[in-house]
Amino acid sequence: MLKSKHITDNPKLYIFLPLYYTLWADGVLTPTELKEINALIEKQSWINEEEKNWLLSLLNPSNPPKPTDFKSWKSEVKKLDLNNLANLYEIGKALAIYHSGQKKLDFEPRLQTDFQETELNLGLLSGEAGYTFKSDHKTITTEYHKERNFEVEKMTSLLDGNQSLLIKNVKKVIADPSFAYREYDSLLDQREQVLQWCQELAKQGYGSWAFPQYAGGKDDMEGYFTIMETLSYHDLSMVIKFGVQFGLWGMSVYFLGTEKHHKKYLKDIGSLRLPGCFAMTETGHGSNVRGLETTATYNKEDETFLIHTPNPEARKEYIGNAALHGQAATVFAKLIIDGEDYGVNAFVVPLRTSEGKSIKGVRIEDCGRKMGLNGVDNGVIYFDQVVIPKENMLDKFATVNERGEFESPISSDNRRFFTMLGTLVGGRIGIPRSALSASKTGLTIAIRYGETRKQFGPEGGEEVPILNYRMHQRRLMPPLAKSYALHFALKYLTQRFLDRKEEDAQEIEALAAGLKAYATWFTTATLQECREACGGKGYLSENRIDALKNDTDVYTTFEGDNVVLMQLVAKNRLTEFRQEFGDMNIFTVFNYITSQAKTSFIEKNPIITRNTDQGHLLDFNFHLNAFRYREKAILNSAAQRLKRHIDEGMDSFDAFNVAQHHLVNVGKAYIERVVLEQFQKQVHETTDQYCKSALTQLCQLYALHTIEQNRGWYLEQGYMEGNKTKAIRKEVNQLCWEVRKNALALTDAFDIPESCIGAPIARREV
Amino acid sequence: MLKSKHITDNPKLYIFLPLYYTLWADGVLTPTELKEINALIEKQSWINEEEKNWLLSLLNPSNPPKPTDFKSWKSEVKKLDLNNLANLYEIGKALAIYHSGQKKLDFEPRLQTDFQETELNLGLLSGEAGYTFKSDHKTITTEYHKERNFEVEKMTSLLDGNQSLLIKNVKKVIADPSFAYREYDSLLDQREQVLQWCQELAKQGYGSWAFPQYAGGKDDMEGYFTIMETLSYHDLSMVIKFGVQFGLWGMSVYFLGTEKHHKKYLKDIGSLRLPGCFAMTETGHGSNVRGLETTATYNKEDETFLIHTPNPEARKEYIGNAALHGQAATVFAKLIIDGEDYGVNAFVVPLRTSEGKSIKGVRIEDCGRKMGLNGVDNGVIYFDQVVIPKENMLDKFATVNERGEFESPISSDNRRFFTMLGTLVGGRIGIPRSALSASKTGLTIAIRYGETRKQFGPEGGEEVPILNYRMHQRRLMPPLAKSYALHFALKYLTQRFLDRKEEDAQEIEALAAGLKAYATWFTTATLQECREACGGKGYLSENRIDALKNDTDVYTTFEGDNVVLMQLVAKNRLTEFRQEFGDMNIFTVFNYITSQAKTSFIEKNPIITRNTDQGHLLDFNFHLNAFRYREKAILNSAAQRLKRHIDEGMDSFDAFNVAQHHLVNVGKAYIERVVLEQFQKQVHETTDQYCKSALTQLCQLYALHTIEQNRGWYLEQGYMEGNKTKAIRKEVNQLCWEVRKNALALTDAFDIPESCIGAPIARREV
Repeated sequence: MLKSKHITDNPKLYIFLPLYYTLWADGVLTPTELKEINALIEKQSWINEEEKNWLLSLLNPSNPPKPTDFKSWKSEVKKLDLNNLANLYEIGKALAIYHSGQKKLDFEPRLQTDFQETELNLGLLSGEAGYTFKSDHKTITTEYHKERNFEVEKMTSLLDGNQSLLIKNVKKVIADPSFAYREYDSLLDQREQVLQWCQELAKQGYGSWAFPQYAGGKDDMEGYFTIMETLSYHDLSMVIKFGVQFGLWGMSVYFLGTEKHHKKYLKDIGSLRLPGCFAMTETGHGSNVRGLETTATYNKEDETFLIHTPNPEARKEYIGNAALHGQAATVFAKLIIDGEDYGVNAFVVPLRTSEGKSIKGVRIEDCGRKMGLNGVDNGVIYFDQVVIPKENMLDKFATVNERGEFESPISSDNRRFFTMLGTLVGGRIGIPRSALSASKTGLTIAIRYGETRKQFGPEGGEEVPILNYRMHQRRLMPPLAKSYALHFALKYLTQRFLDRKEEDAQEIEALAAGLKAYATWFTTATLQECREACGGKGYLSENRIDALKNDTDVYTTFEGDNVVLMQLVAKNRLTEFRQEFGDMNIFTVFNYITSQAKTSFIEKNPIITRNTDQGHLLDFNFHLNAFRYREKAILNSAAQRLKRHIDEGMDSFDAFNVAQHHLVNVGKAYIERVVLEQFQKQVHETTDQYCKSALTQLCQLYALHTIEQNRGWYLEQGYMEGNKTKAIRKEVNQLCWEVRKNALALTDAFDIPESCIGAPIARREV
Repeated sequence: MLKSKHITDNPKLYIFLPLYYTLWADGVLTPTELKEINALIEKQSWINEEEKNWLLSLLNPSNPPKPTDFKSWKSEVKKLDLNNLANLYEIGKALAIYHSGQKKLDFEPRLQTDFQETELNLGLLSGEAGYTFKSDHKTITTEYHKERNFEVEKMTSLLDGNQSLLIKNVKKVIADPSFAYREYDSLLDQREQVLQWCQELAKQGYGSWAFPQYAGGKDDMEGYFTIMETLSYHDLSMVIKFGVQFGLWGMSVYFLGTEKHHKKYLKDIGSLRLPGCFAMTETGHGSNVRGLETTATYNKEDETFLIHTPNPEARKEYIGNAALHGQAATVFAKLIIDGEDYGVNAFVVPLRTSEGKSIKGVRIEDCGRKMGLNGVDNGVIYFDQVVIPKENMLDKFATVNERGEFESPISSDNRRFFTMLGTLVGGRIGIPRSALSASKTGLTIAIRYGETRKQFGPEGGEEVPILNYRMHQRRLMPPLAKSYALHFALKYLTQRFLDRKEEDAQEIEALAAGLKAYATWFTTATLQECREACGGKGYLSENRIDALKNDTDVYTTFEGDNVVLMQLVAKNRLTEFRQEFGDMNIFTVFNYITSQAKTSFIEKNPIITRNTDQGHLLDFNFHLNAFRYREKAILNSAAQRLKRHIDEGMDSFDAFNVAQHHLVNVGKAYIERVVLEQFQKQVHETTDQYCKSALTQLCQLYALHTIEQNRGWYLEQGYMEGNKTKAIRKEVNQLCWEVRKNALALTDAFDIPESCIGAPIARREV
């Protein structure tokens, strides 16, 4: 093109060059495009026939410009100062003037209109086509960046609350070089390292923290949970090994045993001189622990129990600390006296001598490699007629008296067992708090990476931090908001547990079960998003998401399978329902509900169902009402449905199975309401206005994102109309966009030790 | 109770025993319960005052029955033949008669009514309370079990189609004892094993299957995909190493090179004598490969290229086969001639000698441990001025001529690069097919376990296979249906690819990108469900879900990040849209759409939006119309939205970012429609009526479950009303219940070698 005599003779023809370049850039010339250009050229009276033919000859689809020529077209344009040239016409004109050697060229006034019409018809965005030639194409997406609208330290101390000092101390320990992450040569190597870390923690007094002072403890259960949570920024095998030893093994002795057991064991448990296990789960019975088959048969003659595994399905499985280190275990077994079965009770059974030699009758196998938590030595235990003395029965809730008779204040074996389990609810508080820490670490890594990683950008502009992309924000901002929400909800659960009275027991059990399920599912989902959000880097083990994800994957299973737990929550809610109605019996409640269904719970109001006003959508009351409505309505409909099935003669077991999916939603809706309530409460109580405003946004995002996820339900119910759920989606997008600014600071506020984060892609520039 | 003189004097009082037992069983006596019993007792004229006082004394909440006594109550009842006793009243009456020593006892006729009223008021289900004492409580849930309504072999041959023989042969190889799974001592050990397996496969001729016959191949691309898919029942590191060598390295030479390259390399690649890599991705550029920075500078003097890594971000990263075994690589680098940049081109660059010594200027680092696929030796490559001869340029799409000038039939560098990438679309077919195999293995394991694992059951009845529970069915049946759906969709994609003509290129690229994203996300989600559905057993590495999940986790990232791919699909659909309208330009289309929005796409009709008739809900046409409607409407609204933003002056880059979430849904809706269409087509073409009926159910489940997932959208649009989406949910539940019967047989039809399934929990009883 450039060397043709036509263009050297008539430099005005240069005006076509930028347009031609743009057309050829996508490699294909369509018939429509040819037609449009043809029309443009034909209209130009200042071009003679020969020139026209030449211009048209440059648009032959079977004879595209040579790459070198094509490239030289662009170089021509690059010679210009492009700053004030808005579109292809202006660039072309400037080019023509440049080549004419004159200061100005006269073009027909119509030419500009003709060009713009052609550009429009070709679907070229006139304002943007020019960016092909420029190198400073700025857009809102390019320019957007982080800000920090609050003081990170203030947010941290708000999160840490009264536990601040303990948290700092624990962090100091896990940030010590002796706690540095490393690769392991073998399973054994990893397990020994984890044991060593636990020993160090015990030495520092953290193992016995919840135990009585005479056992070397601080009698501080709240502190124990704080320790678990803070340790969870570090290696999770260590956390679980710690939890098995001091939580499961220690607390079972503490809560199911009596003074003689406390005096005998707690000190050695707290110091890790006596490593032990919690042997409940059997191969055949994981969720339905009521069906455990291991037996503890009382022998009146010599006042002993015979612990025995009657069949392979009754072997204890997945028992932490069993494969290598455990010297004793709290074993759950059916107590048999004189051939009579008194249900599941707990016994301390030795497994190994302090030198590690196994006890006669105890056979232990290694569970081997697991998806994660390979630093924990899980094992399988078989008991073959192991004899233990009578005093080894943990006898807080039942004893065998001197005459060899069973005694207990609780008549029913099942009820007694569930009461025992109820005292161990602490495990269902420690696990979600640990899970949340892992989510926080994952989010910190992914958000830091999203801030520094740049990919793609506008034509001729810089690449953009991937956190500026809507999909990336949609992946990471709602989980960030939810991690704050869960933080406060788990704090609330802990407080309820610490302040518990007997009459709260069932509610707290439901709350713990529900939050355990909700938080651990959240963690699994969040770490999956973090992995994908970090792309290939997220797949490399060095960047830690591997370990976080695989170690926490089993959190949805242990301490109660999440689906089973959510049903437990739902059943509890159905009973609560009954209590709310002043101890009416369940059928009266069912009837009451049915008659009320159309009135009391229905707060639908056409003004509200359609209101898409931003003030309304961001309003805390709107959120909480929507959550409460869902909770009540879904519980109500589950109750009605169960009643209907049973009225129709369905077996209640079948009825509960048919409604199982519904019941899981009853549990979720309840938990979501509690979480939102606690988050809002926290916002109200926050005094620092900058923190408050950041938290307000997160709380709004949590609420609206949850409503968005449940929008199918709200629409089905007629609680909202389509225009409103659409407006909510838009608002969620906007909140993600806003929260993104603070995102880095919000993860900084978690204040996770840099050495624990560990991931090279999340390394702080010092 | 039993020893009291009252009851020995008046055995009729035994009638209260079963009721009392039931009341104490839950451990708590509420005031209401006490009141009810009080009333019942007071009404009885046949009981004297003293007896009444005694009966009431047994209900003192602060003095519950002793466990031994409580237990003896039950033993009393157990003495009876409970078979024909329907409720607590009848059991009590039988007990009284038994203890009276008489054949019959006279009770007041009102007593039965009184009892039943009390039971009702207490919320006891009269028909069920008796099960506490029985041991054969049968329910629908208990009795439900597997069936097989079709011949497994017929289904298998339907799935395998014309590839049946090849599949059988490949299975024979991977089921060979030399392919047995084992634990590895180290990363090195694992990598060597995987290399050895690949060598064995090459020896059997599978590596060169797609190559020309002169290179030892069968010229059979379809077979190559079949091989990848079948190998994926075995170790996935092996599959990826295989894919890197024969697919990426081999096909890049095949499709980007010319005859001289084919003759020189293909034979050695196919036999694995020349292990190689595909070096495209750089640390700084993963998704946005257009921005690659490695340079290949042409030196006219000696006709060589200088391959160079200009900065650390430009190092090649995650390159499979690089860390240990690769001797050469297809390197993508910007071609520079005389200082001019000709965009990204491909070059064969040596990495190591055949003895494994590294080539001067090539520095390779090991990527180290990854979340999975640790049998693949991924590495990082830096090039420091590495000289290669001119003939090493893979010159199918561009060459440097004898005068040292760049030549290509494609003018634009970007267009040329994307054309090159387009020829490599096969990778996006192999990956989802491999992912699907992994899903099938996971589902086989989880469904087999769900069939044998029993947990919980009705009071007094047997435990139930967990696959009989609704939530378990909801977890596993929709993915089972979807795995069949995807099987046929991927078969279709493969066929389209094999039959491709130039004008189909863009559509096939979009289809491959979309199905790759859809299938790999499906695999990640499905394996997560399988893991959780297998509980603790699913967490043990021996049960294989660990490896399946971790190995496939990166599938959502490599061969194109899924989110990026879905946007690519959406952009392609927006262009297709344009083509549908006969090459109108994009703005004309936008305008046309806007004016048509309220008419042509809206096929809402009150009869259909509300129709909850089962026949309608299961109707293939209803499903396909709903999918098509969603596809069109969502594409249409995305187009409108982009136009609106741009009209309002938004930069198009920003507009696409704002609509990003919407665009991903455009991609999904398109893919879902294609998947359903192909599944329905397969059902129509199935001649065996039993297979056809099983597939029909799966197809209905896939369709309705997908609609259920998108119900928020359908409700928002007014395409369905709430009563309809509720009816759909019910139908999904019912279909899950139905499909569960065939579930085991449906996984048997995948015909995965037992040795490949490997999991002890899924072991077939022989």
